[in-house]
Amino acid sequence: MLVVALPGGAATAAALASELQCPVTELVVHRFPDGETLVRIDAPVQGECVVLAGSLHQPDSKTLPLLFAADAARELGAARIGLVAPYLSYMRQDARFHPGEAVTSRSYARLLSTAVDFLVTVDPHLHRWNSLTDIYAIPSTVVPSASAIALWLRNQVSEPLLVGPDSESAQWVAEVARLAHAPWTAMVKTRRGDRDVSVVLQPDPAWRGRTAVLLDDIVSTGHTMAAAAEALRDAGFTAPTCIAVHALFEDGAMERLKAAGAGRIASCDTVSHATNAIPLGPLLAQATQALAER
Amino acid sequence: MLVVALPGGAATAAALASELQCPVTELVVHRFPDGETLVRIDAPVQGECVVLAGSLHQPDSKTLPLLFAADAARELGAARIGLVAPYLSYMRQDARFHPGEAVTSRSYARLLSTAVDFLVTVDPHLHRWNSLTDIYAIPSTVVPSASAIALWLRNQVSEPLLVGPDSESAQWVAEVARLAHAPWTAMVKTRRGDRDVSVVLQPDPAWRGRTAVLLDDIVSTGHTMAAAAEALRDAGFTAPTCIAVHALFEDGAMERLKAAGAGRIASCDTVSHATNAIPLGPLLAQATQALAER
Repeated sequence: MLVVALPGGAATAAALASELQCPVTELVVHRFPDGETLVRIDAPVQGECVVLAGSLHQPDSKTLPLLFAADAARELGAARIGLVAPYLSYMRQDARFHPGEAVTSRSYARLLSTAVDFLVTVDPHLHRWNSLTDIYAIPSTVVPSASAIALWLRNQVSEPLLVGPDSESAQWVAEVARLAHAPWTAMVKTRRGDRDVSVVLQPDPAWRGRTAVLLDDIVSTGHTMAAAAEALRDAGFTAPTCIAVHALFEDGAMERLKAAGAGRIASCDTVSHATNAIPLGPLLAQATQALAER
Repeated sequence: MLVVALPGGAATAAALASELQCPVTELVVHRFPDGETLVRIDAPVQGECVVLAGSLHQPDSKTLPLLFAADAARELGAARIGLVAPYLSYMRQDARFHPGEAVTSRSYARLLSTAVDFLVTVDPHLHRWNSLTDIYAIPSTVVPSASAIALWLRNQVSEPLLVGPDSESAQWVAEVARLAHAPWTAMVKTRRGDRDVSVVLQPDPAWRGRTAVLLDDIVSTGHTMAAAAEALRDAGFTAPTCIAVHALFEDGAMERLKAAGAGRIASCDTVSHATNAIPLGPLLAQATQALAER
């Protein structure tokens, strides 16, 4: 087995290689003046299971290097090629919301499925798709973050109330709450644009004295979670803890959450960020090992 | 037939649609804050031959929108999908120059070949590959620029001497010279880096009194052509005319050519640029029509 770090994936690759006790190398990426990209794998791949590792947030600059690296590994004799992408991009466009639109989740899945032999990821955004097998044609394993988040909560927050900012998040929130033995609720969200959302909370007197813990799978600009934090503040909760599975945190999301009254902000380490507090490396390594040996 | 302009391809698409007397629409491209791209085709495609049009210079930001648009067109019932890319990217990495490198020309060809049904381009950089069919699995037509360039030369430059800056360019230069009834030569180039080249010219007394015309297929940073212009100046030629088939002109290429003593600078209109003087729209339209009807 050889772990190859994709652009931005050095930490993921190092953690994986350490768990798997195998060599790791960084994909060498050169950009020519005309904007074309060349990649090179500086380690022997002949006969190896080659695991390309790195999250796919801000995906458009990462996708061609990934596809080129997979092709190079295959041409150079790799026995098997896997992708460990703790954050899997292009899962949110899961329908044709307007006539003429591409369903990019399906197209992207098709691209990756032709390039690699297996896929490991953490809690992909499955909303209208039931599972990765709806769109990915390769064996895949979804590593759930719920038990790691619940463990962190039990150690860090007493008497939590788990809160999902919208109905889509209810699936993660309910599972974490079950494992953390805590009550939960989900708000109702209305979205008017990429950066314009409102949420409504229906308070319950039984929550008095609890620490609100907002939990969402993907925090991008943070507008949704910020609106949710404000709604919690209006309902009498002070400084809600905010947890993201995937901390994309674009466009000043941290400042936005703090301005909305967020207390502690924590995330899984699927996307490298200062808030990373919940490690998933061991679970990723287990899943990778199992698929590599199939 | 419907022509869809890819990002940056509005001029190519308009010229094509005008020649083909068919409707044209611009691909709608939306970028989300998390860096994902959504595309939409705002015109009916059911039963149509959909022609995606636009050059692929600076390709990495254009490739996913192209692949997504092709998938969307197919899912929405397009009868046939073509790509008219007057400049075809990723043709220069045509070998594994160092161990572990990807051969991106092959990978890129595989990507496009699964997305579209046919391809039309202008003089792709065929050096180690003999023809597009070596790597592209779809029907393709190469529109040659030589006759259009020769016509421009006959009208604009008296007594030209055609000069290729390196041995790779000899194929274009010889053909243009034949059609323009002019003598030609090719320099010998040594490349030490993306932006570091030297060229050597072997002068011939028979060239006295002629206007040197430098011709290359791709002018990217212009370092090669600038070095060639300087070598011509050293050999006694004043203000050589510079012609690029594909005027990528990155990183201050224009200023570099002028500083090297270039006279007139002209290019084919495969990549939109101020120097475009040699139109290829009619030839592209003919080739497109022929492939669309197959």
